[in-house]
Amino acid sequence: MKPVVSIIMGSTSDLPIMEKAAKLLDEFEIAFEINALSAHRTPTEVESFAHNAKGRGIKVIIAAAGMAAHLPGVIAAMTPLPVIGVPINSTIGGIDALLAIVQMPPGIPVATVGINGALNAAILAVQIMSLGDEAMAARLEEYKKGLAKKIVKANEELAQVKYKFKTN
Amino acid sequence: MKPVVSIIMGSTSDLPIMEKAAKLLDEFEIAFEINALSAHRTPTEVESFAHNAKGRGIKVIIAAAGMAAHLPGVIAAMTPLPVIGVPINSTIGGIDALLAIVQMPPGIPVATVGINGALNAAILAVQIMSLGDEAMAARLEEYKKGLAKKIVKANEELAQVKYKFKTN
Amino acid sequence: MKPVVSIIMGSTSDLPIMEKAAKLLDEFEIAFEINALSAHRTPTEVESFAHNAKGRGIKVIIAAAGMAAHLPGVIAAMTPLPVIGVPINSTIGGIDALLAIVQMPPGIPVATVGINGALNAAILAVQIMSLGDEAMAARLEEYKKGLAKKIVKANEELAQVKYKFKTN
Amino acid sequence: MKPVVSIIMGSTSDLPIMEKAAKLLDEFEIAFEINALSAHRTPTEVESFAHNAKGRGIKVIIAAAGMAAHLPGVIAAMTPLPVIGVPINSTIGGIDALLAIVQMPPGIPVATVGINGALNAAILAVQIMSLGDEAMAARLEEYKKGLAKKIVKANEELAQVKYKFKTN
Amino acid sequence: MKPVVSIIMGSTSDLPIMEKAAKLLDEFEIAFEINALSAHRTPTEVESFAHNAKGRGIKVIIAAAGMAAHLPGVIAAMTPLPVIGVPINSTIGGIDALLAIVQMPPGIPVATVGINGALNAAILAVQIMSLGDEAMAARLEEYKKGLAKKIVKANEELAQVKYKFKTN
Amino acid sequence: MKPVVSIIMGSTSDLPIMEKAAKLLDEFEIAFEINALSAHRTPTEVESFAHNAKGRGIKVIIAAAGMAAHLPGVIAAMTPLPVIGVPINSTIGGIDALLAIVQMPPGIPVATVGINGALNAAILAVQIMSLGDEAMAARLEEYKKGLAKKIVKANEELAQVKYKFKTN
Amino acid sequence: MKPVVSIIMGSTSDLPIMEKAAKLLDEFEIAFEINALSAHRTPTEVESFAHNAKGRGIKVIIAAAGMAAHLPGVIAAMTPLPVIGVPINSTIGGIDALLAIVQMPPGIPVATVGINGALNAAILAVQIMSLGDEAMAARLEEYKKGLAKKIVKANEELAQVKYKFKTN
Amino acid sequence: MKPVVSIIMGSTSDLPIMEKAAKLLDEFEIAFEINALSAHRTPTEVESFAHNAKGRGIKVIIAAAGMAAHLPGVIAAMTPLPVIGVPINSTIGGIDALLAIVQMPPGIPVATVGINGALNAAILAVQIMSLGDEAMAARLEEYKKGLAKKIVKANEELAQVKYKFKTN
Repeated sequence: MKPVVSIIMGSTSDLPIMEKAAKLLDEFEIAFEINALSAHRTPTEVESFAHNAKGRGIKVIIAAAGMAAHLPGVIAAMTPLPVIGVPINSTIGGIDALLAIVQMPPGIPVATVGINGALNAAILAVQIMSLGDEAMAARLEEYKKGLAKKIVKANEELAQVKYKFKTN
Repeated sequence: MKPVVSIIMGSTSDLPIMEKAAKLLDEFEIAFEINALSAHRTPTEVESFAHNAKGRGIKVIIAAAGMAAHLPGVIAAMTPLPVIGVPINSTIGGIDALLAIVQMPPGIPVATVGINGALNAAILAVQIMSLGDEAMAARLEEYKKGLAKKIVKANEELAQVKYKFKTN
Repeated sequence: MKPVVSIIMGSTSDLPIMEKAAKLLDEFEIAFEINALSAHRTPTEVESFAHNAKGRGIKVIIAAAGMAAHLPGVIAAMTPLPVIGVPINSTIGGIDALLAIVQMPPGIPVATVGINGALNAAILAVQIMSLGDEAMAARLEEYKKGLAKKIVKANEELAQVKYKFKTN
Repeated sequence: MKPVVSIIMGSTSDLPIMEKAAKLLDEFEIAFEINALSAHRTPTEVESFAHNAKGRGIKVIIAAAGMAAHLPGVIAAMTPLPVIGVPINSTIGGIDALLAIVQMPPGIPVATVGINGALNAAILAVQIMSLGDEAMAARLEEYKKGLAKKIVKANEELAQVKYKFKTN
Repeated sequence: MKPVVSIIMGSTSDLPIMEKAAKLLDEFEIAFEINALSAHRTPTEVESFAHNAKGRGIKVIIAAAGMAAHLPGVIAAMTPLPVIGVPINSTIGGIDALLAIVQMPPGIPVATVGINGALNAAILAVQIMSLGDEAMAARLEEYKKGLAKKIVKANEELAQVKYKFKTN
Repeated sequence: MKPVVSIIMGSTSDLPIMEKAAKLLDEFEIAFEINALSAHRTPTEVESFAHNAKGRGIKVIIAAAGMAAHLPGVIAAMTPLPVIGVPINSTIGGIDALLAIVQMPPGIPVATVGINGALNAAILAVQIMSLGDEAMAARLEEYKKGLAKKIVKANEELAQVKYKFKTN
Repeated sequence: MKPVVSIIMGSTSDLPIMEKAAKLLDEFEIAFEINALSAHRTPTEVESFAHNAKGRGIKVIIAAAGMAAHLPGVIAAMTPLPVIGVPINSTIGGIDALLAIVQMPPGIPVATVGINGALNAAILAVQIMSLGDEAMAARLEEYKKGLAKKIVKANEELAQVKYKFKTN
Repeated sequence: MKPVVSIIMGSTSDLPIMEKAAKLLDEFEIAFEINALSAHRTPTEVESFAHNAKGRGIKVIIAAAGMAAHLPGVIAAMTPLPVIGVPINSTIGGIDALLAIVQMPPGIPVATVGINGALNAAILAVQIMSLGDEAMAARLEEYKKGLAKKIVKANEELAQVKYKFKTN
């Protein structure tokens, strides 16, 4: 299957975080690819990647980066595809990466999710692709219902907690 | 024409910022609507809006909010459509709104752009809709080339600046 | 006993923090309930909860949330009851949750306590309910005197510490 | 009429902000008093005020302070009444006052509202007092409906804005 | 020996940090006392302490506090003695305590040292008392020379490190 | 009269802020000097100043600096006298100067006051010198009483404000 | 004269700040060029610029950028020349640009100066080029002496200020 | 070999971070020295070091410091050589050190790298010295190519990761 989502990250050390995006896409049976690319170490490869992504059939790019996180913005500058940026927490809580990704200048947006928000990046990719794919849209609705079930389960756990207290 | 993008904001005081989104969509001849909605003052209308948006043909929602900015996230919780959040700068530089929009919990992403980033929100909406619309995609490519022209013009202005200095 | 305070939280992972609120209410023999609710995953349940709370006899709601913490504000928008918000520290020290809870727009206050301040949320609930309950007010005065006793005990410990130093 | 809400502030320079609290209470026909008190300049008066407030019939105290804002916390330490803290923005965006008010130690809560949030402080006071006053509770419900009307009016204004754009 | 420096803290949990102040004073053979006092839990004791400190022969007060750290400022308001404030790091890196101590309003200074800066608080106390005590001033000069010796020792360690590298 | 307090600042642009320190010292009839010195532009003069200050009869140094504010710390490193640091707000609200002054390493304290807190720096200098000067101590007590009078005056102003409201 | 320093910026709106760099270089009779380039709008031109700069005789690049400031880092990734980054203050005090420039990943440094620090960027460029140019080094020493003269002038102004006060 | 780069730090506790700079210089066969110096504890040695560095043949100084990090700026004030500042993370994530190093006043730049960015400091030193040394410049180009190889290796690792997912 040809990938339609491309997950890129600066190093394999980001993989434990970005795997959550991969798993969600896998759960939705969306073909994806994972690659390492660095805006600073492999600028030529980044350029080549960005220029070719649409032609290769990629629809959404998920780019993770930490510190002075340039990767999502640099790619967004070179592709018409929507780019989802995932700020990675490294030394100062991820605020550096968040600001370096979200505060893009007029003309070149990056769709930014929360710090280490790999799962949400994948869900956002699904939401975007669901606009042209009713089957995927239906699956997304199912997924959202599943989120509510976690709350039901939480309430069952809390119900037992309450017996510890004397007044209830 | 039936709107496909819905711009919502908490009050008309956000309009001077959000007009940039409206103008960009207008430039792309994308039908849109602008409405005021408040997660806190009109929760019932927000719910009704969010539940009906997809059925009414809306494809992307752009939601602007300041301070403890809940509007984008609250809507994202009740629609399968992609929601683009625009943090509005009110009292402390917009950092409150940025964090209140971007730091969404797992399961409910908001595609966040920069503080007061209304133009980028609209471009992101165009990028998303272009995935299923080659004519729009072509127009987007044109638009991006136009951004580069601003730099050419800037260089012409700078060329004249340089004559002020003796060493050049 | 019908609960008069309702403690809500987004997931059971907040329970170790929120138990301090439960214990304090228990100590004051105030009937309370604990439930999991999510502004984003179970918006319908949140709405139903908020609309019915007052009718069910609830007097004060304590709502805990982390990250882009919308739960306290969303509930405050749909109930006339006072809502006490507890920002939970997740990734960036809890500043995101604090701002997302306290910076509410004009018209919809949330009575915000400190980061992870579950105990103080419960004491604030007691203070509010004591306005109409002299017995509870008397118990609260006792509790405050107890706080001072901890300082007395601390001084006893410090008295022993001082013997370690040669000049005293 | 004997005041039931006491608004205190460090200096008359805070009055333009705190007047919003006064006006809201006035609109609700709730008797209130406004006084200047300083945790640092008039500690004896603060102590006397805090110890006597309940006995004088005060039910809720609204305390505004900027910078290293100690007034709300110092009063909360000496009264069983609920104290609502309003952080005032002075030099660094009000973050100093917000943290100095909200981050109270275990045992002494201050119900903190947003930076310069005088109106919300007054509404919170009304919510608290409404627990024991059905007439006030009814008026509060009316007030909340009024908030929604502002959104209706905003939409009327926005409806006219939209005619500026060609595609709608 | 009658104490001339008074170290106060909110709880014995601050002792591991504040012991550095005690040790330095001990090293200088300056009589001191350590007590627990809380601006919020024992306001009456704080007032009594502050009013009597000068009369008891105390010359400098060192007050440590975390979170919404009111203790140093509250004491400074009630004594003519210089008060040195030590912000204690609790949940958000100590920035809350730093701002709550240093940003005092005009008229009531607190001499603030760095976060967890107990040692520096004690040295500052020595510097202040040395103004009227030439013997103590001489000892202080000795102490400062000792600081430079640590650098000499560090250089000896570094000298050995350098042999690890091939080019030197 | 030989100066006993030395006010230093990096440039005359800090004078409008630092004049408040000068006026307070003048009011207390304390002889002082004001000089410009720069840790970075005139390091030799700074060193000479710091080494000679005590010998010239200076008792307290007040050093103001903005941005990467090194002046107070650099002087503190070269004198046994207490150095009071005043962070000056330049571009980012003064947080840079505050941290660069207060976060001194172990061994070299700077007694830091609030951002732009020139008046408090002078009062702190008076408090320190009052330890050895009962006449000055008495004057300081008078000054503190004067602070309370401002609150009395504020209350008179507020008394008139209250007539604007119908319920009082 | 062939330029040896290249000043680049994202738009002509940065010129009022960056002119200070141009003026300093002009004062040192160092040939320079000023151009507009955007990491996001003209990525191809940026790449071509970065790859050719050394070959054209450029020795140091000064790159200014605001918000999610990628320009300095992107250029640094594609040239062996030292790149000096100047963070420009736009919406949130320039902290976003500072972090997006300075927090570069291992392998690709940007020599960052302070927010809006154009003058210092130019001086740093002179310091770097002076390593291989003794005449320039001599001129730099002269310039540094000039900085000290400003302090002398400031002291003359302050000398007059002091006459306003009675005690001196 | 006479050292051309001088690495200085405040204490040996910074060595684990600064060793990365030493190793890189070693790899480039650049002679360097490592010393401990403290702006605050050994001001005379700092002055002597700064005044003599150029004469001893040093070309670039790398200065690491934490907290109120004055060392790089103080040295920069006393030498015409370029000074590279490395902010060291101590208590609050290194933001204090970053601001205390980068926000230098006009006239005295410090070339600041990221928090704990010792490796980048060394690379920047190499870039600066390469301007006058073509052999070193060639080696630097090789080094940069090596960075790209890490990405190639990362992709090989990621290729294996992808087999974990069912859709690829």
